[in-house]
Amino acid sequence: MSFKGVTIWLTGLPSAGKTTLAHLLGNKIREEGITRLEILDGDVVRMNLCRDLGFSREDRMTNIRRIAFVSQLLTRQGVIVIVAAISPYRESRDHARETIKDFVEVFVKCPLDVLVERDVKGLYKKALAGNLPHFTGVSDPYEEPLHPDIQIETDRETPEASAMKILDVLEKLGYLPETLSREKRKSAP
Amino acid sequence: MSFKGVTIWLTGLPSAGKTTLAHLLGNKIREEGITRLEILDGDVVRMNLCRDLGFSREDRMTNIRRIAFVSQLLTRQGVIVIVAAISPYRESRDHARETIKDFVEVFVKCPLDVLVERDVKGLYKKALAGNLPHFTGVSDPYEEPLHPDIQIETDRETPEASAMKILDVLEKLGYLPETLSREKRKSAP
Repeated sequence: MSFKGVTIWLTGLPSAGKTTLAHLLGNKIREEGITRLEILDGDVVRMNLCRDLGFSREDRMTNIRRIAFVSQLLTRQGVIVIVAAISPYRESRDHARETIKDFVEVFVKCPLDVLVERDVKGLYKKALAGNLPHFTGVSDPYEEPLHPDIQIETDRETPEASAMKILDVLEKLGYLPETLSREKRKSAP
Repeated sequence: MSFKGVTIWLTGLPSAGKTTLAHLLGNKIREEGITRLEILDGDVVRMNLCRDLGFSREDRMTNIRRIAFVSQLLTRQGVIVIVAAISPYRESRDHARETIKDFVEVFVKCPLDVLVERDVKGLYKKALAGNLPHFTGVSDPYEEPLHPDIQIETDRETPEASAMKILDVLEKLGYLPETLSREKRKSAP
């Protein structure tokens, strides 16, 4: 079974739920029998490709350009790539779309006050106290997508529901086959 | 048809013939009906992933680490990756082998005096005149592979013959199917 590659690009504030969603979505795609899947987590890529980069606008743009380059190579080889990266700048996400072409932008949205309350890693508090420069959403900008292909609201829907939403769009766009398990999923309550 | 991915790593002095061989080999593999192929040319990768890097030992090692990271992602997705990169340090080539695992090291060898005479880009003369610091083979070290999987001698064999040599090894290692066109090739005079 050979299907077109695609990059599913999850963008959103820190701790909005991108990595969780990426892995859940990845598992669901694997359950459909698709093994040509790669998850590129922003932090992991930073370690491997961008250890030299900081968090200035320019460095963040370079970081995203590199992720886009790698995603493009994988996508054109028929791989489903899930990127989970804050990617705060519209310009660099647009560049990624233009480079990769088979590209689905997913805005993983969560209101700041919810994130501050959750604050899984304690970083929001630190940033709000002024002790974390270049922290996206607090001390660094985040430019919300204007026309994302999919919008997820992690404060209102379960990761499970979000993943299903993405799978449906991928299927509609022809990036996923309609397999038995998907049929089952659809007829499930 | 699904085959195991592999990285064919061409290492050698500047202008030894790595890029020429990479593209010729790529064409031959495509002729075998294999489309899942990617050529990573050192210069191209440098532009996309490593514009920040210079030519110190440390920067060259980082450059190779990044190429290895990308090659590994592609290889594990079943892609045949051809890397053409000077990659002068044994340590970083060994690291690439360990990371990628399905890895064939090809030493693209050509004596320095032949390269100086050819000097396609005029860079050897410049380096020998002392005007090009960090030029591998002249003003920067090149550590020859001690046990390459394949050794090519571009001053003694045609690119065509070199490509055939590599194809034979790939087939023996199980990375290429025995297709009709290969059979034909074998029975050719």
